[in-house]
Parts: sequence; structure tokens; C-alpha cells
Amino acid sequence: MSRFFPTPDECARHTIFPGVHIRTCATDRLMVSVVDLEPHAVVEEHAHPHDQVGMLLEGKAIFIVGDEQKTLQAGDVWCIPGGVRHKVITLDQPTRALDIFTPVREEYL
Amino acid sequence: MSRFFPTPDECARHTIFPGVHIRTCATDRLMVSVVDLEPHAVVEEHAHPHDQVGMLLEGKAIFIVGDEQKTLQAGDVWCIPGGVRHKVITLDQPTRALDIFTPVREEYL
Repeated sequence: MSRFFPTPDECARHTIFPGVHIRTCATDRLMVSVVDLEPHAVVEEHAHPHDQVGMLLEGKAIFIVGDEQKTLQAGDVWCIPGGVRHKVITLDQPTRALDIFTPVREEYL
Repeated sequence: MSRFFPTPDECARHTIFPGVHIRTCATDRLMVSVVDLEPHAVVEEHAHPHDQVGMLLEGKAIFIVGDEQKTLQAGDVWCIPGGVRHKVITLDQPTRALDIFTPVREEYL
């Protein structure tokens, strides 16, 4: 097993909302979450003290962050400071995103 | 200008090694760097106190991290604790990677 190159089968897996499946790995200070969202899935509005950045890898999704709303596609990036409420809704296709958190979200290890 | 959805033209840009171009954005605690590497580019061996995670988005590259070496392709992930030496070499195609650092690398703002 590599120290530095985690494979998908070595990651922790969680279903965090219906149709929203994550696999995670982490350093002491950073958590990587690869998020697979089914069509018409909803990440319900929530907030956490962790800073969160990410990129949409495949598909499309409506992101609502604070008082802003934008439909994102592959290559689009988000930067969400800790404490800011956010929600995500996918459209009619499977969607994949990469999220990174600091500090590590212990509940996703 | 969005607080949460930075566009490429709003990012800072740097060429950090010959043929290695980055655009960055950040929260207080996380820096996102979209890295475009030309064919046969080299990120010379280096280390920094920041933790670094990332994903290869397009292309292929040889990653040497600590005492491990692996050829990565799109979708592959790395987790590099602070202080661990690393080097990257692209092959014969343009390659794109996403890197995230904590703390923010002030020199890339």
C-alpha cells in the first residue's frame, strides 16, 4: 500500500445524502473527497467550520453558496470559507466532483 | 465578481518551472492551484511545509514522492504531507493537474 498514492479501493466510503456517494483519503491537515452524485441528487443545505474548495469533474450541478447560485460544469471551481451555508443539486446526468477540506472531517475518515 | 466561484481570469497566474503554469485562488486556509504542464516538463524535486493533495485531470505524469514513484493518469490522487520531497515529470502530452495546499502558499497568491 502506497503512503502517497491512495487507490479507490483503499479509500473510506460513505453515502452522505441519498444518491451522493463519497470516497475519502487524507493527510493530517487535508481531506480529499471524490463525490459521485446520481442524477437529481441533492446535497441538502448545510454548513461546517471547515474551509472547502473543489472542482466539478464531470456532469453539471447547481451550487448555492451563501447568497450566490451558479450552474457549474466540468472544470469549474468553488471556494467556500468555513461557516458559509451551501447546497448542491445535480441535473439529469451522473456528476462527479472533487472536494477538499481543512481541517480533516473526522466523520468521513 | 463572485465570492465563491472564481473564474480562470480572476485567478493569479505564475510559471513555476519551465513549461509549468499555474492559476490559483484561495480561502484563508486552502489554496487551489490548477496546473498546466507542457509535454516533457519537469517540476524539480522540492519540499515545503504545506500539506498538498491533488488529482491528475488530463494527461499522464511520473510522480516521485519520498521513496515512491508512480505514473499517474486522469483521476489518480496524491496525498503529500508537509516536508516530503517530490518531483513530477510529464510524458509526451499536455497534462493538467489540480493541487490543493494548506496553509496557503503566499508566494502564489
